[in-house]
Order: sequence, then structure tokens, then C-alpha cells
Amino acid sequence: MSNEILSTIKSPQDLKKLDEATLTKLCEEIRTQIIDIVSVNGGHLSPNLGVVELTVMLHYVFDCPSDSIVWDVGHQCYTHKMLTGRYDVINTIRAEDGISGFPKRNESEYDAFNAGHSSTSISAALGIAHAKQLKGDDSHTIAVIGDGSLTGGLAYEGLNNAGRFKKNFIVILNDNKMSISKNVGAMAKYLTSIRVKPTYLRIKNKVENGLTHIPLLGSPIKSLLRHSKSRVKHLVYKDTLFDQLGFRYYGPVDGHDLDALKNALLASKNTKGPVLLHVVTKKGKGYQYAESDSASFHGIGQFDIETGEPISSKKDFSTVFGEGLCRIAQTDDRICAVTAAMRTGTGLMDFSRIYKDRFFDVGIAEEHAVTFSCGLATKGMIPVFAVYSTFLQRGYDQLLHDAAMQKLHMVVAVDRAGIVGEDGETHQGVFDVSMLNSIPNTTIFSPCYFDEMKQSLNTAIYGCDSLVAVRYPRGGEIARPDDLQVSSMNYNIYGDRNANKLLITYGRLFANAVTAYEMLKDEEESICVLKLCKIKPIDKAAIEFAKDFEKIHFFEEGILAGGIGETFDYELTKIGYTGVYKVTAIEDRFIQHASVKSALEHNKLDAQSMYEIMKND
Amino acid sequence: MSNEILSTIKSPQDLKKLDEATLTKLCEEIRTQIIDIVSVNGGHLSPNLGVVELTVMLHYVFDCPSDSIVWDVGHQCYTHKMLTGRYDVINTIRAEDGISGFPKRNESEYDAFNAGHSSTSISAALGIAHAKQLKGDDSHTIAVIGDGSLTGGLAYEGLNNAGRFKKNFIVILNDNKMSISKNVGAMAKYLTSIRVKPTYLRIKNKVENGLTHIPLLGSPIKSLLRHSKSRVKHLVYKDTLFDQLGFRYYGPVDGHDLDALKNALLASKNTKGPVLLHVVTKKGKGYQYAESDSASFHGIGQFDIETGEPISSKKDFSTVFGEGLCRIAQTDDRICAVTAAMRTGTGLMDFSRIYKDRFFDVGIAEEHAVTFSCGLATKGMIPVFAVYSTFLQRGYDQLLHDAAMQKLHMVVAVDRAGIVGEDGETHQGVFDVSMLNSIPNTTIFSPCYFDEMKQSLNTAIYGCDSLVAVRYPRGGEIARPDDLQVSSMNYNIYGDRNANKLLITYGRLFANAVTAYEMLKDEEESICVLKLCKIKPIDKAAIEFAKDFEKIHFFEEGILAGGIGETFDYELTKIGYTGVYKVTAIEDRFIQHASVKSALEHNKLDAQSMYEIMKND
Repeated sequence: MSNEILSTIKSPQDLKKLDEATLTKLCEEIRTQIIDIVSVNGGHLSPNLGVVELTVMLHYVFDCPSDSIVWDVGHQCYTHKMLTGRYDVINTIRAEDGISGFPKRNESEYDAFNAGHSSTSISAALGIAHAKQLKGDDSHTIAVIGDGSLTGGLAYEGLNNAGRFKKNFIVILNDNKMSISKNVGAMAKYLTSIRVKPTYLRIKNKVENGLTHIPLLGSPIKSLLRHSKSRVKHLVYKDTLFDQLGFRYYGPVDGHDLDALKNALLASKNTKGPVLLHVVTKKGKGYQYAESDSASFHGIGQFDIETGEPISSKKDFSTVFGEGLCRIAQTDDRICAVTAAMRTGTGLMDFSRIYKDRFFDVGIAEEHAVTFSCGLATKGMIPVFAVYSTFLQRGYDQLLHDAAMQKLHMVVAVDRAGIVGEDGETHQGVFDVSMLNSIPNTTIFSPCYFDEMKQSLNTAIYGCDSLVAVRYPRGGEIARPDDLQVSSMNYNIYGDRNANKLLITYGRLFANAVTAYEMLKDEEESICVLKLCKIKPIDKAAIEFAKDFEKIHFFEEGILAGGIGETFDYELTKIGYTGVYKVTAIEDRFIQHASVKSALEHNKLDAQSMYEIMKND
Repeated sequence: MSNEILSTIKSPQDLKKLDEATLTKLCEEIRTQIIDIVSVNGGHLSPNLGVVELTVMLHYVFDCPSDSIVWDVGHQCYTHKMLTGRYDVINTIRAEDGISGFPKRNESEYDAFNAGHSSTSISAALGIAHAKQLKGDDSHTIAVIGDGSLTGGLAYEGLNNAGRFKKNFIVILNDNKMSISKNVGAMAKYLTSIRVKPTYLRIKNKVENGLTHIPLLGSPIKSLLRHSKSRVKHLVYKDTLFDQLGFRYYGPVDGHDLDALKNALLASKNTKGPVLLHVVTKKGKGYQYAESDSASFHGIGQFDIETGEPISSKKDFSTVFGEGLCRIAQTDDRICAVTAAMRTGTGLMDFSRIYKDRFFDVGIAEEHAVTFSCGLATKGMIPVFAVYSTFLQRGYDQLLHDAAMQKLHMVVAVDRAGIVGEDGETHQGVFDVSMLNSIPNTTIFSPCYFDEMKQSLNTAIYGCDSLVAVRYPRGGEIARPDDLQVSSMNYNIYGDRNANKLLITYGRLFANAVTAYEMLKDEEESICVLKLCKIKPIDKAAIEFAKDFEKIHFFEEGILAGGIGETFDYELTKIGYTGVYKVTAIEDRFIQHASVKSALEHNKLDAQSMYEIMKND
């Protein structure tokens, strides 16, 4: 594929010279390029395929970077990146030292705001717009937000504040009827109701076209037209919810029709005050496998373009968690599963089918997920909220107040705990331990192996009575030594108990510790390994055990500050330990995108680094 | 006042026998009782005066505790407490060992869910309702939420999920047009628009009355009525936003009219599926000063009534912060102030008047406040978000991702940092340090005195380039030694540099440390005091200074796990410190309501405890 048009686009200015046929051809090239690159590098396929035409026409109609586009979540920015000077490096996307799979302000002046988590775009764009107003800058600010992201409360906080803003401000609702899976909630239902009003659309579009095609007629006629349009609107269609929140609602518009998009975007551009433009798109558009199963192709690793099959498919922790929870739910009807739009990702597909009544997908609404779970718990249910570590950050206050402070028994299954790889800094699961560690009445398990995870889950459900987290990494199990006896859910000891040096760790790093142990053993050096599974509260016996070693090294796949390495240190200090104690963890910084393997190496958390540190320290 | 009716109410059952005249008299007694008790104990006056009739009629119409009432924020629960068996102990409210000023499940079976922070009620109630459904329990679940709380995104997440629930579920919107100050945002404006439709109200009420007064006529007629009502409704009035979200909207109803309330509550009770009942109340109702200035009487006692805080001056940190920020804003037009409905509480009244364009009250929306601030920062503004420590917890993910990860220069003025006293466990500012400490690219200042706070603010604005927090306690300055030289914003040394024992602390505890130092000096014992102001990152020189002492004791008015005491310990461990090191901080638990003085004593953070610990350890 030569990309004869795409390769000539050095900036959005180059787009503006193209006619509709060429733009159509450009969209085809972009779409093929996206499929190619994601099949090799992995990434977010369906979201990117859905917004090709929208992105092209946004850059056609608006003038970035003076106009600002804020992409919600940011996983749909590939077209944007290719059109804003990054086509040449698109093949490096998500790779170490390559460009990010998300917007990054330090990567391009066209990236107005970083993203990664959902529902921030309206708030960020409103801040940008207010700053522009204060500086007398009349350029436009546009937030592009999916209907899935609109289930997050932050988006509503943004709408509620933007609805009273009097300047150029456009929210584009990219409505594909999906979150990652099918979108849920009353808002989703409402969007369906306004989506299916073609009469309204046709009448409105006609008026709109009139408006935007005669810009020279001046304000009286324009005002008349707007007035009549408004009357037409109220006759044909009731005020939308967005009008009620202070927005002028335009739409719905076919998000794959370049001409309709152009007209709608021009109309939005020419309107003073906040506009909500409702664009209907198809997630995965143009790639049959993604169109028919957009959830599986939402975020994906390498895959075969011809068959749509993922290249690797080992059993992962999410699947094992889902199976384990189903097994428990079979004999215990108090078990409820809660997810924030991550039914597939967290392994809850089977649960959602088998225990329909006890399964709750609440949308991208982690705060609600926690408080709702607590409501369930007050009446004797046992809610299990399955969530990625990075997204759990959204629920900090609710975990603290609604769960822990009330001592309600709620289980959080923290998926993607630790380094996640190519999704990069916004998706790393390296803060959950510090966050949960600071919360009273809380227990945290961080197992290393599948069976240990299942046992932890069982203990969390039947052996705890307040907030309890079971955290496990993205992906599958790592090699396990035959002679490991997992005798306790609190801690286990491996290696030479009489050694001078102790390596302490938890979670999947234990597998690396075992490799380091074996490397040292090959050189006839001996160490002991203390493997924690329950990391809060730490078993006093584990601390007592550690204090007899001359040198202790704690390895932690998480942020240093507030982590278990520091807590363990203070526990040792309290009982008068005076030996050498060091922690290797993630220092005060964020982890960029790179493979998990590479990121662990950079942070000296791989087996080789452990070997070297234990040998030399 | 004898409270001849109120004193006879032992449970809500006793209410049901009373006629309207007696109920009216009861409301008068309750109102007087509330004013009396708050004048002595402090507390939330205006919110409680606004819901007297609503609470009485809720307990009249519904059957608690089988029916569940979830109070949003919970600061309006005094009437509820008096009607549910706690009239005899209402005089102990907010006092140590007395009943709490907020709903507490462990205090009464009538308290369905704990609260303290805003916007949780719909989510919690929905969890309760789902659990009831799973258990075949047909009782009602009611969330009572103010229009102020409706500005928080979590409330919308709750509405979005509740709108598709098919069972008994009632949201009562207690609309007093206020948050703590005047309510803001598009939703507030929208509520005004539906509030002023008396025609609709009259027609609807007539139909409603018909409906509820002929319950024996059976479902066909009822259904016909409902059908015609629905048609009337759509003729007279457009669908409300709440209808669009799946609710049946009833209202607006006069929240001080017992009969209207009774009818509306009965209609709500008899409706299947989610109902939103819009009740209009007057905050501060029945007490003229509170009616005319409900903001000042929202939460009172903190200024007028002896709080038990040690030697506090009249001027408080909030005021000094507000003055300081105004001074800086006068010569720097990049300075913006952001508040989440806490204009008065955070000392921003003057700023909001003088710098109207640069002042943003975003409603009770801390997540939005942070992300919006970050948007401002991308365009060169310097946003200062003033927020209570406890409410900042809501913005953890946004601080981490939108501010710190993007290295955007945003200042957070963390008010009410540390123990706050009678508001109790939901309002203690004891988690912000652990929370912020775990965030990379972040600076935290914790000054002890007014001038130091102003200097910290100045450094935060002109000497930092990423996320920076300046945290200061509730109330005023504590006594300051004449010989203290505050020479650095990083750390300062006080007392005997040649002593064996070092006391380290930060924030207002330094004043206690000075007292302890003087007590010891009187006994001819000497200690040195290391006073930190910049607590993240800790100045390496402070750590180097500390390492020469034989014994070190760190006092911290915050949670131990993840706090500065642990971080300092690990910094010392890294450089091989082998002396005695102990931390006195808040162990793994929540702090109940009590005076600040008493809470500090219980946690051994008062001067006397410091003296004893330093002397004996």
C-alpha cells in the first residue's frame, strides 16, 4: 500500500486543498494503515476505525493547533496523529521510544491535552476555552467524547459547567452505541431515542445547510433563520437533554458521511455558545471482524489481518478470576459481580451470562461502582468489583469512605496490577498498592500464581469482613518452581533460610526472584526469598523472620512512596533492625510505554537485575 | 421548651397516629430544638431547618427501617435522628462519645448508609434496592439528595444507572437553590426553569390527589388515570431531563406544606419504577438569620463557639489564604481561583468579587475542578484550587493523571488539613499527605504559621512548575516562639542542635513541639526540633541533619501508612542510620468526632504527649 495521499499530508493545512473524492480516498488509506499498524504493534483498533472521517473533517473544518481538539480517553487518536505530522513515525506507535498510543502534549503541539482515562475531555476543554477567553483568543475548543465516556460522572460535571459558558465551545458526542462492550444506562437508552428521529434530522440539516452556505447574508437573516430553526425544532422534536443543560444540540449526523460531517461541523463552528454535536459512528468501521465484534477489537495485541485471530492467546489472570468467581457464585447466591464497562477485559463474560441478576455493568463509573457495591453489602450481598488497577484510582474516596469507613465487606478484584506495557503511563497499575495501603480496615492480597489467586479470592470472600483487594497482573502466569510450597495466604519462604541475604517481594515478581535465586545458586551463592501474598496488613511473623538477616532487599512493582517496601522498613525499624535494607521500586516518576519486559528491566525489577543487586549489594 | 409532642416520639410508628395540626406543632418543636442544640454544639443549621417537614412526612408515609432512607451528605439528619429513637441523646450530637452529626449505621438501624461526602446517596440506595430485589424484599428505598449534591458527577452516575431499574426506587430532590452558597451550573438553571411552572404543578397535583385518594379502585382505572396524567403532562409541560433519564418526575412540591408532601410521597410510593420527586425547600427555614444568610449558617460553631482548638486567634488560615491570593492576583493576571462550592469556607469571597473573571465555582465537583484547572494551565494560567483536604480525595485520579503526569503547574490549597474536630471521621483531613506523597512530580508544603503559609503559596506559584499543594489546618494560628527563625521553606531547626534526641514534625504540630521542648527545658532536658515545611520532596540536608541524632521521633497529624514519617524512615535507612526511630501518627484507623484538642490527645499528638514520649523514649 503506497498511501499516495496520506503520505503527502504533513499538516492539517494540506487537507484543506483536497476535494471530496480525494478525502474519501484518504480515509480509505488511513483505515488500511490503522489496521496494518495495529495488527503489528497492537493497540486500540475499533475506536480508531470509527473516527476516521470525523477526524479528517475536524482537521478540514478547524485550524489546529490554534483551535484545540481534546480527545476523550485518547485511544482514538491514530488518525489525528497521522494528519498532524506523525505519519512518518506511526509505525513506532506504542513501541519503546516511539510515539504513544494516546495524545501527549510533549509529542506535538496538536495534542491539546493528555488522556488515557475516560470522561476528562469536557472539563479539560472548558479550562482551555476559559483560558483563551481570558487571553482574548477567539479560537475554538472542541472536546470529542464517546457515548461510553458519557457514563462517567466527570463528563457530566463538565457538561454542567460548560452549559453556562458563553463562548466558542463544542462537544462532539461520538455515539457508537458502545462503551468497550455495549453501552449501558439510562443515557444510552436516551441517545437511542434521539438517534432514531430521522425526520428531525432531515429538517434540521436542511436549515443548517442554508445557514452555513450563506454566511455573507449577515446577522439579521441568520438570526431569523436561527429563530425559525429553533421553532421548527420545537415543533418536530422536544428539547433534548443537552439543550436543557444549556447546549445547542445538533444531530444526529452520520459520522461516516464526509459531506454531512462538514456541514454539521461548520454549523457548530458558526454557533456562539456551547454546542453539542451528536455524531453517529460505527466502532470498527471498515474491518469486518471489528465491526461484528468491536469489543474484542477494542484494545488488542498483535493479530492476523486475514482471520482477525489474535496471535497469542495464553490463559490469563482475568479468565482464571472469572472462572473462580463463577464457581463460588454457583453455591453462594450472595456473590454479585460489578464492572465499570469492563465485562470482557476483567473476565466476567461467563458470570454475566450465568448470573444475569447478580451481574452489574455500571458503565465507566468507578465511583458509582464502589458506592453501589457498598449499598449491596449493607444488605448482606458480597459484591466483587472487578476493575483495572489504573481505573480504581477513580474510586479512592469511595473506597475510603463508603467501604472502609463503614467496614462493609466488599471485594475489589484489581486486574492489570503492575506494569502493563504498551498502553503506557496512563494505564500502568503501579499506584493501587500505595492508594489502598493508606486506607484503614483494608486487606490486600497480591498473589503470584493462578491457584494462589483463586485461594486469595476465596479468603477475601470468606475470611475477611471489610474492604479487601486481590490484585493480579495483566497476562498469564510465569514459570513456577516445582519445590514451592504455598502453605499460607500471608507469606511463604523459599530458598536458603540460613543465608545472610533476604530478598522480599510480592506478586509476579516472585517468579523473577526465583530465577535470580537459581542464578545465584549456580554460582554457589545463597539467598532466602520471602514471598508476601497478604501485603496489608503484613503478617508480624514475616517481619520477625526478616529481622535475622544481615541484608534485606525489597523488590516492588509499584510506586515507592507509600508502598509496602517503605511500610516493611518501618516495621523493621520499630523492632530495632539495624541491618542493611534497600528497596527497589518505581521511584518518584511515571513509566512510559514499552514492553512489560523492558519496563521491568528499566526499573531493575527483572531477574537479571535482582541477581545483580543481590550479588553485589 | 417542653417538646410535649417530640418527647413522646420513640419511633416513627408514633408519628403515624398524629393528625395534621399535631404534626405541624411537632415540626415547630423540632425546629426550635435544632436551633437550640446547634447553638450549643455547633453543627449544620440551615440544611437541617430546611428538611423538617420533609423528614416528618417521610417517616409518616414510609415504614423505616424496612423502608430505607439514604441521606446525601448526611448533614440534614437531625430531625431523622430525633424521630428514630435518638431524641433523648440529641444534646450529645457531635460531642465526644455522643451521637454523630451524620448518619451512622452502627448508631441506629434507621441509618441505612453512612455519609459525609456529597453525591453518594443514589448509588448507595440503588445498591440497597438491588440487594432487596435479589432477596425478594419489596420495601422501598429512598435517596434524599440536595440540588447542590446533584452537581457532583457521582450523583449523575447513580441516576444513569437507576433510570433503568424497574423496582421501587425514589430519589427525592431537595431543591433549595443552594449548594453551601448559591448553587451553580446548567443543572441549577434548569431546575429553576421547571420550578417556575405552577400551571403544571396544579394540574399534576390534582391528578395525583385523585390517584392517591382512590387506591381501592384497582389497576384498570389507575392505569387509565396514569395514562391521562401522562398525556396531560406532555401537553402542559415537556419531558423533564429526569424523565429522559428513565425516571417518572413528580413535582415541584412545596417542601414545607405537610399535605402536599404527604400526597406527593404517597404518589411516589405507589409508582413502580424509579421516581424523582422534586421538593422545593428553604434552607434555614424558620430561623430568620439562617433564612437570610443560609451560607453562613450552613455549618456553624466553628467560628462562634469554643471549638477546643488550642489558643486559636480569630483570623483563620482560610482568610489569610484568601487575602494572600488576592494580593498575588492583583499583579499577576494569570492567577485563577477554583472552588468546588466552597467559596466562603476556603476564604475566596473577596477574590470572587474582585476577580470575577478569574474565579470559578464549579459546584461540588472536585474531579472537574482539577481537570478544569489543568485545562487552564495548558494555556499559561496559574490555577489555584482551594479545597478541604477530605474533599480533595475525590480528585486523586485527576491530580495523578491530569496534573502530575502532564507536569502542569497547578496549585492546590488544601484547607482543613489535619484533624477537624466535631464533624468527625468523614471530614478529617488526615489522608491528603499519603495521597499526594504517592504522586510523582509533586511538591507539598505544610506550613505552621500564617506568614509561612503565605510564603509557601508564593513559592508554590513562582517557584514550582508541576502539581504543588500548600496544606494548612482548620482554624487559626497557634502560639509561636519569639526566637523561631523561619529561614527556609524547606526545613528549620529549633532548640538544641547538640541534643541526643530529635523531634521531627510539620504543620501546626510544630507549635506543640515547641511547648514540649519548653517543658523539657524546664526540667533541664534538651531536645532538638526539626520542623519540615516542604514535606515532599524532603530536603536531603534535613535527612543528613537528622542522621546524627541517637534517637529520633517523628510526629505526624495524618495517617501513618504512606505518610512522611515512613518516607523519612526509609530515607534514613538508605543512608545507614541505625539509631532509634519512631513515628507517632494516626495508626490504621479512622478518627471519630471529638474536639481537635481531644483527638490530638487521643493520638498522642498534643504537647503533653510529645513531652512524655521525648522524655521517656
